[in-house]
Amino acid sequence: MKDLNGLFHHLLKDIYYAEKQIVKALPKMAKATENSQLRQAFEQHLEETKGQIERLDQVFKIIGKEPRGEKCPAILGLVEEGEEVMEKGENGDVVDAGLLAGAQAVEHYEMSRYGTMIAWAKQLGHHKAVPLLEQTLKEEKAADAKLNQIATSTVNREAA
Amino acid sequence: MKDLNGLFHHLLKDIYYAEKQIVKALPKMAKATENSQLRQAFEQHLEETKGQIERLDQVFKIIGKEPRGEKCPAILGLVEEGEEVMEKGENGDVVDAGLLAGAQAVEHYEMSRYGTMIAWAKQLGHHKAVPLLEQTLKEEKAADAKLNQIATSTVNREAA
Repeated sequence: MKDLNGLFHHLLKDIYYAEKQIVKALPKMAKATENSQLRQAFEQHLEETKGQIERLDQVFKIIGKEPRGEKCPAILGLVEEGEEVMEKGENGDVVDAGLLAGAQAVEHYEMSRYGTMIAWAKQLGHHKAVPLLEQTLKEEKAADAKLNQIATSTVNREAA
Repeated sequence: MKDLNGLFHHLLKDIYYAEKQIVKALPKMAKATENSQLRQAFEQHLEETKGQIERLDQVFKIIGKEPRGEKCPAILGLVEEGEEVMEKGENGDVVDAGLLAGAQAVEHYEMSRYGTMIAWAKQLGHHKAVPLLEQTLKEEKAADAKLNQIATSTVNREAA
């Protein structure tokens, strides 16, 4: 990590790894919930995440690097928290509320990382990468808003 | 974790542990930067974080529980990413950009967790806890906005 280009490349590998972990986690989360709205949200976000990985492939191409992930401790911690809820939640409604909250924590992590990558891409003149990263940031924000709506309309009430 | 009350208590212990980790990390981050604006932001947020822990003490009291932390894998992963930047950054400007981005990832994690706790406190009728949690959420958002401003005004340019 000798300059901002190196840091951008590092963060790109980090989020690439994170998105691939999310692709593994979401089907387990969808399977663990009996709430149809929540399951649908997880399934929809799985498809979106696959598209986000394709956009990251394009960003790697723009900076002239091979697409490659690098272990990201933050996403592993976030995924571990979700797994804990699935293990320790004593009934379906509690698991739903915990999983939903965990998914929002993941969305927020990603929002922060994509926000940083957009700022760095602009600073570095990677102009073609900016709209790709902005499109993903928009999807992450929309996914979070959708989860908020599901939390307040059904999931939190049912868990209480 | 048998109901939303149990989940709320679990998340409260999780964020209590996280805030205490942040109190340990911020002085190291302040020491690692030579950018005076960034150092000041870290030092100011350290003081704020201590106040946030006191508010969490009050929330424990409101739900009739002893203040106690519980290991939170997500914050450990986030802190580890910051430590990696301090170790591997080859010059001060790169360390600053990486630390700032890492601090924003922590802020976003906290925003998501306080947002969830506010929604759950409302659902559970812990009305006295709501303004305490909202005050902290407001501070986390302001800290993130301040970091954004420092990133775009100096840190990213200097690292490029």
